[in-house]
Amino acid sequence: MNKEEIIEKLKSGEIKIYEIENHVDPSLAIEIRRAYISEISDSPLKNISNIAFDPEQVLGSNCENVIGHASVPVGVAGPIEVSGEVANGSFIIPLATTEGALVASVNRGISIINSSGGAITKVIDKGISRAPVFQTKDLEHSFEVKSFVDENFSQIKETAEKTSEYLKLLKAEVVIHGRSLWVRMNFSTDQAMGMNMAVVASEAAAHIISSKTGARLIALSGNLCIDKKPALVNSILGRGKETFAEVLIPKEIVEKKLKSSVDEIVEVNRRKTWEGSAMSGSLGFNAHVANMVAAIFIATGQDPAHVVDASVSYVTMEKSEEDLYVSLKIPSLEVGSVGGGTKLATQNELLNLILTNVNTKKIDAENKALALAEIITAATLAGEISLAAAFASDTFTEAHESLGRSKIN
Amino acid sequence: MNKEEIIEKLKSGEIKIYEIENHVDPSLAIEIRRAYISEISDSPLKNISNIAFDPEQVLGSNCENVIGHASVPVGVAGPIEVSGEVANGSFIIPLATTEGALVASVNRGISIINSSGGAITKVIDKGISRAPVFQTKDLEHSFEVKSFVDENFSQIKETAEKTSEYLKLLKAEVVIHGRSLWVRMNFSTDQAMGMNMAVVASEAAAHIISSKTGARLIALSGNLCIDKKPALVNSILGRGKETFAEVLIPKEIVEKKLKSSVDEIVEVNRRKTWEGSAMSGSLGFNAHVANMVAAIFIATGQDPAHVVDASVSYVTMEKSEEDLYVSLKIPSLEVGSVGGGTKLATQNELLNLILTNVNTKKIDAENKALALAEIITAATLAGEISLAAAFASDTFTEAHESLGRSKIN
Amino acid sequence: MNKEEIIEKLKSGEIKIYEIENHVDPSLAIEIRRAYISEISDSPLKNISNIAFDPEQVLGSNCENVIGHASVPVGVAGPIEVSGEVANGSFIIPLATTEGALVASVNRGISIINSSGGAITKVIDKGISRAPVFQTKDLEHSFEVKSFVDENFSQIKETAEKTSEYLKLLKAEVVIHGRSLWVRMNFSTDQAMGMNMAVVASEAAAHIISSKTGARLIALSGNLCIDKKPALVNSILGRGKETFAEVLIPKEIVEKKLKSSVDEIVEVNRRKTWEGSAMSGSLGFNAHVANMVAAIFIATGQDPAHVVDASVSYVTMEKSEEDLYVSLKIPSLEVGSVGGGTKLATQNELLNLILTNVNTKKIDAENKALALAEIITAATLAGEISLAAAFASDTFTEAHESLGRSKIN
Amino acid sequence: MNKEEIIEKLKSGEIKIYEIENHVDPSLAIEIRRAYISEISDSPLKNISNIAFDPEQVLGSNCENVIGHASVPVGVAGPIEVSGEVANGSFIIPLATTEGALVASVNRGISIINSSGGAITKVIDKGISRAPVFQTKDLEHSFEVKSFVDENFSQIKETAEKTSEYLKLLKAEVVIHGRSLWVRMNFSTDQAMGMNMAVVASEAAAHIISSKTGARLIALSGNLCIDKKPALVNSILGRGKETFAEVLIPKEIVEKKLKSSVDEIVEVNRRKTWEGSAMSGSLGFNAHVANMVAAIFIATGQDPAHVVDASVSYVTMEKSEEDLYVSLKIPSLEVGSVGGGTKLATQNELLNLILTNVNTKKIDAENKALALAEIITAATLAGEISLAAAFASDTFTEAHESLGRSKIN
Repeated sequence: MNKEEIIEKLKSGEIKIYEIENHVDPSLAIEIRRAYISEISDSPLKNISNIAFDPEQVLGSNCENVIGHASVPVGVAGPIEVSGEVANGSFIIPLATTEGALVASVNRGISIINSSGGAITKVIDKGISRAPVFQTKDLEHSFEVKSFVDENFSQIKETAEKTSEYLKLLKAEVVIHGRSLWVRMNFSTDQAMGMNMAVVASEAAAHIISSKTGARLIALSGNLCIDKKPALVNSILGRGKETFAEVLIPKEIVEKKLKSSVDEIVEVNRRKTWEGSAMSGSLGFNAHVANMVAAIFIATGQDPAHVVDASVSYVTMEKSEEDLYVSLKIPSLEVGSVGGGTKLATQNELLNLILTNVNTKKIDAENKALALAEIITAATLAGEISLAAAFASDTFTEAHESLGRSKIN
Repeated sequence: MNKEEIIEKLKSGEIKIYEIENHVDPSLAIEIRRAYISEISDSPLKNISNIAFDPEQVLGSNCENVIGHASVPVGVAGPIEVSGEVANGSFIIPLATTEGALVASVNRGISIINSSGGAITKVIDKGISRAPVFQTKDLEHSFEVKSFVDENFSQIKETAEKTSEYLKLLKAEVVIHGRSLWVRMNFSTDQAMGMNMAVVASEAAAHIISSKTGARLIALSGNLCIDKKPALVNSILGRGKETFAEVLIPKEIVEKKLKSSVDEIVEVNRRKTWEGSAMSGSLGFNAHVANMVAAIFIATGQDPAHVVDASVSYVTMEKSEEDLYVSLKIPSLEVGSVGGGTKLATQNELLNLILTNVNTKKIDAENKALALAEIITAATLAGEISLAAAFASDTFTEAHESLGRSKIN
Repeated sequence: MNKEEIIEKLKSGEIKIYEIENHVDPSLAIEIRRAYISEISDSPLKNISNIAFDPEQVLGSNCENVIGHASVPVGVAGPIEVSGEVANGSFIIPLATTEGALVASVNRGISIINSSGGAITKVIDKGISRAPVFQTKDLEHSFEVKSFVDENFSQIKETAEKTSEYLKLLKAEVVIHGRSLWVRMNFSTDQAMGMNMAVVASEAAAHIISSKTGARLIALSGNLCIDKKPALVNSILGRGKETFAEVLIPKEIVEKKLKSSVDEIVEVNRRKTWEGSAMSGSLGFNAHVANMVAAIFIATGQDPAHVVDASVSYVTMEKSEEDLYVSLKIPSLEVGSVGGGTKLATQNELLNLILTNVNTKKIDAENKALALAEIITAATLAGEISLAAAFASDTFTEAHESLGRSKIN
Repeated sequence: MNKEEIIEKLKSGEIKIYEIENHVDPSLAIEIRRAYISEISDSPLKNISNIAFDPEQVLGSNCENVIGHASVPVGVAGPIEVSGEVANGSFIIPLATTEGALVASVNRGISIINSSGGAITKVIDKGISRAPVFQTKDLEHSFEVKSFVDENFSQIKETAEKTSEYLKLLKAEVVIHGRSLWVRMNFSTDQAMGMNMAVVASEAAAHIISSKTGARLIALSGNLCIDKKPALVNSILGRGKETFAEVLIPKEIVEKKLKSSVDEIVEVNRRKTWEGSAMSGSLGFNAHVANMVAAIFIATGQDPAHVVDASVSYVTMEKSEEDLYVSLKIPSLEVGSVGGGTKLATQNELLNLILTNVNTKKIDAENKALALAEIITAATLAGEISLAAAFASDTFTEAHESLGRSKIN
């Protein structure tokens, strides 16, 4: 069939819009689908057509019913100096954003950090988690299932790990409430963020538990996992990478470059970030972590819905003798250097860019996901410093007016 | 100067990367900056070059230090039938995502909703909020400031509204804790999401309060606003659009199309969404609202960091006689049909697409932002139904295996 | 029947333990019930017999199936100097507690406060709340019910207020989620804490709403009220009395009397009360507010389960020039000077004691409930100061060792 | 000195009110102090004088500056049939309360539970916790301290356990945020609730950590412990006893005895306890757990401020075939059968009463604390069932009207 014929069949309902790839190659399918959608909606869809990704690659892997792309501007900040567990060197930060002033703000923060000797970072791989929920017969049964999981951890682990050579089951914690029972499993997943692997492995684990104990599987994800919803459990038990960043900014730099004082900035942090967040019932004690994480996630092919999880993070600014000490903790940062959107053409280029130490050019293959987590955390620290300083120096308005869109969160 | 000269000056530090636009036109500036970054990082940056937006338009408005773009695949679901306050008709849903199965999942949910007569939606414009935090001298002073704000609301309103013809101050609530005092203001901002306007107006309001009472402005955003951090205050006091969607799915459709039963789906909702969320300390009681909101936000030029706010939302599935009643409430959905990323070429096309009723083609100009909120909520409802049904029908694994990436949250 | 006959009938089941008062006077009924319980449990119940309350008064009003009393030690702290909205003067604080060191700790804090000129307090009567939850037919119906409540507020108010001459309906806010609808009503209730009045009035209001709209009443308390569960909504919308207390402690007093420094105490507050609470997912940002509130509540006949609500409160310690500024906010303190346990003999004496200004002896009848709220808040501030100082001065262990039980929360 | 002389010296300030015991025996000291307070406040303090506890015993252990007592009415409910881990049999429930209808409500719930075969309970001893917070030099130092704690757990354990023969250190978890570092330790403490022991042991542990690593101890309690503030961390990591209770109520009993239907009660639970709590930002998903826990805590000499912790608990009511399944989980119930207020005369009698199986009279000495936790949980379940049923059957108003004070939470 040619394009016109398929469009006719789409209109008549003989072909569904997700079936076009059954008839023509993926590239043409996108064109046909766009034409069809354009026609029925009377919408010109010209600008979205110039995709930068390979339709073959996306098909069955990243997106269904493709009609084109959203072209999101990417600006750069940095390079930022990072001294981390695995990320050491100078890294350029790509940010995909449509929010004016965000890149400039991060860049300003990086300048401060670099002047202060760079950011120190730490990362712990807590493992991606999934927590199936089961229904049991009663409390007695729930406790029996818990005993089964505790006593047969190695069997469950073996079964889970058969599903992928990259996956390791780190732990399995049972939570009981009456006839509801969750098994919260954390998996290390090599360089991948790992949700796909975790789901397949969780299912294998859930099947053993179910078949051996009679517990009925209700949902492979029982929301104790928990992702894409803001929750404290991830701060305590961990999910993905737990990261830390700090910098000690000398008093002189605060005064000259940030045009403020250490006391002023500390006060902004206290009244806004701690008191204000507490009184709003917030789980996140920060200014705008979500901004930086979202922009880097979109640029590098991470899952943007995971920004929710990262927003539950903590920023402290304290006076250290005469200087300003700033620290950031992100308990749950879900990133990977392979899988998901990372293989798409533009995202892959930008992922490689952020993972390139501009001094040495060296990249360590087995540490890419951890390095990515550390670099994102350092860049996020920069954004937090810049915004707090803007408030403290009353320069926010000018920043806003000259850059068209404010960076006030 | 030509390209090579500028690159040399970038290397020598004579020109900063954000100064290139001072010397050449924005389009060339992007090319030069990309070449420079490519060189210092030894990174090929070819794929990101083919931008779909107008560099002039982005400059000083959406992104600084631009080097190119991230090309995010856009798939479509629908059209979905919506009966809302202002959105009435059939709407195609564009989703910008790299997460396999998401579009297919939403599409499946839409099919169920349409078979059930469409989604009913409601929307209330709560107004965008900003809450400056002040320092007062003591409790007595705090109460005086509160009296000033309460008694001079109309003056504050007048001043705030002078900053933009599109902005109205709806209310100003004072919260006190010792010497910290917040004034939480909600603004209606016409068709814009409105953060920019709100910041400018808040500053004007803050200046009156400060000058008339002696309270010292600490930060224009005192985190009681609150955005880009997950917090309950927005559920109670509102921020942006408060939206609702519902559908009553006949028993037969649940059984035939969702391959499950009403009781099974209700049980998934209860054990996973309510019990699981409560036990994880989550503020969000849903399955994956963030997925749909993120994908539509990126497609239509909204601020993706606001996905955090939308994730604090609620999904109930209950048995209604023999049928399945599903409802979704999003207390804080920050959207606009103008401003921000909405004017960029691809985003604008997709915004127009989602706002096109495929039956009548009519678009009502003064209701676009509200209509957008309703359509997003209806599409999100579809995603929630589809995922709950997948769990309930045990089809999630097959879905996952055939589509490469799971839709399990 | 005499005592022995009734005991025989209790054993045979002819008389239930709650029916004894049908046969003998309340005082004898208590004795018989105690004898019976003593016998069937083979427990000597001698010490509990010497009750200080009037059995007639308790019957049908405070407690059923009475067998005796719990005699809780009452110690005093103070007098504390208070400059409040309605409480002005020196007040002795009775604390009913079995926790060693608590009274001593509060007393020490009061000494500091008095040396610093006394505590400043503020109080706002937010009104006691009750929020019935209804089931509606669908979203459309929910919005109709909301309109009904908004448009007929004065009729609802009139009906509610007919139930008691002491009660005023202050506001009625409607919250919708699908087919669930809450009407959160706040009532001023004169000198009573007011839960009883609020329930009766809410029922009257709910009946109008139900009969006029067809919404089905599910529960008179829909947990949006909310009491006896810790929740942020009360911080934002208010419940009972919202109170504030502050004191500015001169540097010299901190150093001499608290054996610490302003910086040390500020740091304890920051790392413990703000950071520690945030990372534990706490809604309360304080050290041990619940201790003081519980002890005074038990002493003065308030409802001890309301301690939960008061625990969601905030304590800030900040450096003010060279001195220490401390503030406490309790958003939801439910107290009354009449009703409930306040009329019992010992509780009434202690209530009168705490409400007595030791300088003037004057008590203002129409402000007793508000004054009580202010005095409790001032005493709670004292306890918070004392504990933070104990940490900061490393004296906590000695305090603990000499007083047998630690005051470390 | 005689009474009058001491009172004169109290007035002149020569003797402080906490020094009276230095001059006369404790019993007379109470009398003198009461007389003095009565005089300076012009308050008759007669009713509070008839204390049931031994002044010698209270001195230096339970309360300072004693002037008398609060006599709290104690009613009984039950006996309740319990099948637990360690509590098996029929137990009478003493409740110290001034809230009319509470005892009657619990008694009604017990009647339902007994008719349904009794309550099943489970208990896990998570250990009492204390989490000192330290200041470190920087992130590197924080990670070193964490390594020290992880690698030297057995040394820390040995040191901690030297402080008491009854105490065992179960685990020590390190949480880092920048220069703040918490070591959360859980201790088993035999039959005591254990806070005193835990503080002493924590101090010993903190001293090792501090001296070996150079971390500076800021506060022995860093609020990650966490007690007397409502927080999710206790639900996840545990504090005190984690308890569970369940009952399956046959349909016939629901209809005849509760005058309602299974569906009605399930709906009350869903809309009120789950939806209502979520929308109010509550950490507790129950109706009035705090009521029962407070009343039993006061009766049996437990710490009433710990009611806050217990209020973070969960109640589910679900249909099981045609019957009603109800379950309660209290993640953090801090109780002991020795120490604290348990040794006071009335409290000790009531503690022994609740721990007496009325059938066998046997009490197992090494399980008393766990048994107490199970019995409290069973009685709390009864209170939850009774209240939900009251709503569902519309009988709440009658209950309220006849008993004077409502049991509506």
